[in-house]
Amino acid sequence: MRNLANNLQPLAINAATIKQWSLAQLLDGCARRGVTAVTPWRHHVQELGAAKVRRLFADTGVRISGYCRGGFLTNPDAQAAHDENVEALKEAADVGATSMAIVAGGVASDTKDLSVARQRVTERLNKLFEQAKTYKVPLLIEPLHPMYAGDRSCVNTLSQALDMCDAIDPERSKYLGVICDVYHCWWDPYLKAQIYRAGKDRLQAFHVCDWLVPTKDMLNDRGMMGDGVIDIRGIRHWVDEIGFDGIIEVEIFSERLTALPGEDVLALCIERYQTVV
Amino acid sequence: MRNLANNLQPLAINAATIKQWSLAQLLDGCARRGVTAVTPWRHHVQELGAAKVRRLFADTGVRISGYCRGGFLTNPDAQAAHDENVEALKEAADVGATSMAIVAGGVASDTKDLSVARQRVTERLNKLFEQAKTYKVPLLIEPLHPMYAGDRSCVNTLSQALDMCDAIDPERSKYLGVICDVYHCWWDPYLKAQIYRAGKDRLQAFHVCDWLVPTKDMLNDRGMMGDGVIDIRGIRHWVDEIGFDGIIEVEIFSERLTALPGEDVLALCIERYQTVV
Repeated sequence: MRNLANNLQPLAINAATIKQWSLAQLLDGCARRGVTAVTPWRHHVQELGAAKVRRLFADTGVRISGYCRGGFLTNPDAQAAHDENVEALKEAADVGATSMAIVAGGVASDTKDLSVARQRVTERLNKLFEQAKTYKVPLLIEPLHPMYAGDRSCVNTLSQALDMCDAIDPERSKYLGVICDVYHCWWDPYLKAQIYRAGKDRLQAFHVCDWLVPTKDMLNDRGMMGDGVIDIRGIRHWVDEIGFDGIIEVEIFSERLTALPGEDVLALCIERYQTVV
Repeated sequence: MRNLANNLQPLAINAATIKQWSLAQLLDGCARRGVTAVTPWRHHVQELGAAKVRRLFADTGVRISGYCRGGFLTNPDAQAAHDENVEALKEAADVGATSMAIVAGGVASDTKDLSVARQRVTERLNKLFEQAKTYKVPLLIEPLHPMYAGDRSCVNTLSQALDMCDAIDPERSKYLGVICDVYHCWWDPYLKAQIYRAGKDRLQAFHVCDWLVPTKDMLNDRGMMGDGVIDIRGIRHWVDEIGFDGIIEVEIFSERLTALPGEDVLALCIERYQTVV
């Protein structure tokens, strides 16, 4: 297993983890502390422009590890969903992101039939996959916790996401893969088997945070690694066993953390990455 | 498919749905409206005594449909967990309940390894199963939504629950089965297949409510049928197809509903049962 205690190289910070900082502050903070990768969101690019974002990364020497995010493919308006995603892919390519996260979209607004929503996701990803190859930005399907099936994602397990990958990209081109985020996947009885099934070609990103007991808010009460009940190291062990040598990204939506000084949150991310992940 | 519009016979009300009423008020209300079954909780029996509870049911002619609840089998103290469940089974037998719901218990307090918690549940259910046969009260494993894996149940899918049934009771004795509650199971991509796998021997109870978008509280913001995004009739169709002819129980934990007059909640349960389920 990779020893992370003295190795910050694999660590990335998702910008949502330290919302109290601007992207510029986050990149400066990371550069100062030896953190070498950050994942920005679309709103950063939309606010600052791709050129400025690229320059901020270049000036600090921080890598851009992923791009948040495309998806929402259950929209009854197929063309609108497709166009929005092509726009996001273009942004991701413009800033030099190495992948883009896909959040599938929840129950469709025109039918409660989840199988219809899921079928739409597969069909539209199939079309979007061609664009991903054109822009050379892999699409990474991020299964979300089943508690988001209503409004955010009808893809709720690695198994589903990998079925989609197999259907769309049987050649394992690397332009379609999955994100394993412990927050979304930790409860899954088939998690280990599905990580092994994915292999390193498919499993291109590993996200960490923790599940708090009690969780007081379904969106913004994720925990810092070590503060909850997830066996994070156990899951990381499985991910290591398939030869995963990529980025380990800290992505925590938390009002508790947003209320702290950004510097303190970053220090805590690093410490827990070294001791708990 | 059973036509429920003019048939209240299958309908049961879980006492937690109308908490603003005492058990006596609930049974009176149900009897007045032609609802023939109610599921009480352990605290009713502990407060009133089994004899009094039995008399309340007998006096109103309402059936006792289930008993809430046993379980919490991931407790490091195996003997304490077992004894508590035998006590609950005895109560269930004393009041004449036709089954007892089992909520497995969440991540164990002494290890974050979910496979350990799940193994404990299987082993201890295996032991408890003997008592269930002695008391003639079937144990019904209720998989809970994955968002309860931390604190309430490490059994999160019908698939897991049925694996446990197959391991413990391969003869399908009917003293071990499962509850399919749409709130917990609706998101599951394998739900249909697992309902078919269960068959009517195993699937002994069907619970309905709805998933609200947004859900503001993980415990007490379940929705009245029809107010959320679950395709309840679609799931009921599958349950009907396996020949399920048992009770359809309305179990809704909701602060919104608790704030209304009990009479209004009961009327709404009946109306939505007839039109949405």
